[in-house]
Amino acid sequence: MSTLGIIAGGGDLPKAIAASAREAGRDIFIVSIGADAWIGDYPHDTVSLGEVGKLLKLLRGANCSDVVLAGKLARPKFSEIKLDAKAVLVAPRIIAAARKGDDALLRAVVDTFEREGFHAVGAHEAAPGLLAAAGVMGRIKPSADDEADIAAAFKIVRTLGELDVGQAAVVCEGLPLAVEAAEGTDAMIARVGTLPAHFRGDEKHRKGVLAKAPKPIQDRKTDLPVIGVATVRNAAAVGLAGIAVEAGGALILGQRAVIEEADKLGLFVVGVPHAG
Amino acid sequence: MSTLGIIAGGGDLPKAIAASAREAGRDIFIVSIGADAWIGDYPHDTVSLGEVGKLLKLLRGANCSDVVLAGKLARPKFSEIKLDAKAVLVAPRIIAAARKGDDALLRAVVDTFEREGFHAVGAHEAAPGLLAAAGVMGRIKPSADDEADIAAAFKIVRTLGELDVGQAAVVCEGLPLAVEAAEGTDAMIARVGTLPAHFRGDEKHRKGVLAKAPKPIQDRKTDLPVIGVATVRNAAAVGLAGIAVEAGGALILGQRAVIEEADKLGLFVVGVPHAG
Repeated sequence: MSTLGIIAGGGDLPKAIAASAREAGRDIFIVSIGADAWIGDYPHDTVSLGEVGKLLKLLRGANCSDVVLAGKLARPKFSEIKLDAKAVLVAPRIIAAARKGDDALLRAVVDTFEREGFHAVGAHEAAPGLLAAAGVMGRIKPSADDEADIAAAFKIVRTLGELDVGQAAVVCEGLPLAVEAAEGTDAMIARVGTLPAHFRGDEKHRKGVLAKAPKPIQDRKTDLPVIGVATVRNAAAVGLAGIAVEAGGALILGQRAVIEEADKLGLFVVGVPHAG
Repeated sequence: MSTLGIIAGGGDLPKAIAASAREAGRDIFIVSIGADAWIGDYPHDTVSLGEVGKLLKLLRGANCSDVVLAGKLARPKFSEIKLDAKAVLVAPRIIAAARKGDDALLRAVVDTFEREGFHAVGAHEAAPGLLAAAGVMGRIKPSADDEADIAAAFKIVRTLGELDVGQAAVVCEGLPLAVEAAEGTDAMIARVGTLPAHFRGDEKHRKGVLAKAPKPIQDRKTDLPVIGVATVRNAAAVGLAGIAVEAGGALILGQRAVIEEADKLGLFVVGVPHAG
């Protein structure tokens, strides 16, 4: 199998992909575009955002044919990026896509790699071990009320996903408390804590569910929904009873730590197969 | 025509209903459950939340048969409400409904009036002058880009409405920036201002649209979506280009002031007929 090229931004996702792929016996080469110090554990190099030619050369030199993009990018002003010759060629399409949002930007970047003969793979293909399995993952099981909230929340998330809105929602006792759009899941969860107390649970009487599922129209080469230990802590802090993700349709970063934290804080974490 | 009974909570809506209905020549009697000082301009009395028997007696004494409920209620703890004899009878149903959220609570209260022989009417029936008309209301017209955002935002709002989620959304250049659930429209608009600047407009280059439309499943006796001067100011503060409401499906409080403020701040306000 060829070396897996990981173009790594910030945050925990690229690190988790690298660890999971290495555990599966894969050779790995990291090109950092803002990754943290963990890349020192792997063969790696670093490029700045405008160094597209250098990036492609590095990947070819390391014998990568599969390439995965993961992690967060700070968005500099385009006028402040120094473009190399290759970057000048691809910049117009990338800039046009960037104006349409993160999803479009990622798709344009993926297209660029495909045009250069690389095989752009999703995080779940590079590291299938990160995919959420079906079933209850920890010690705590959802109640019948929780199951009803899970079903209602998935219905909202999938309906919104068809409109390319977001991939997360919180439902509590049948009431939709929060729906994710551009603000991201952590901000959406935090908002639940600002709602009147009678709408939601608390640490003593947990109720309500965070559900995450991919957009049906989503290019799975880019961003499946992700949960990690921070997601569990955030959900716990606003009194939720647990977290439901689409089995095979969401990534769990640090699965062992996620389950330990959920067990400790008294939340369930469950993977729910998509019937549709 | 019988006297219109207005059971008035806080905020501007009950005041606007009273003014509009009086302008149309209707006799009015206000029962305050937390209304502001404006009720001094009308025949009125005051009850506390647990005085259901007194409330019904007041409405009958004032020859009301149509009754409209409007305005905001502070939610005290039920244990702190002193119930009169009638309230004791209706309390179990109201309390059960309150646990299901504001909509269910309002529906239960409306049911209670209907059982007592009153005709519960919606704000738009009591004061049709508040309903949004079709067309551009001020000096500024939506651009073609704005029209596309309006269409996308209404699609999201109506889809969400079918799931009983919320009645407002913000879309900017095709991107859904924020979707309303339990937090309310003002909090949702404010959130747009916290998103990265490249997602949204600003006061110099306004872009993006707030759309409000009723839930298709909504009991129109209770809460049509409302906009007022504060909505215009909030939308302006986060760089939006304008506000679109469903013509005949939303209330505009202080229409003249709303249009003046929108013209002054450079926003459009438009009523869009619902094709469906």
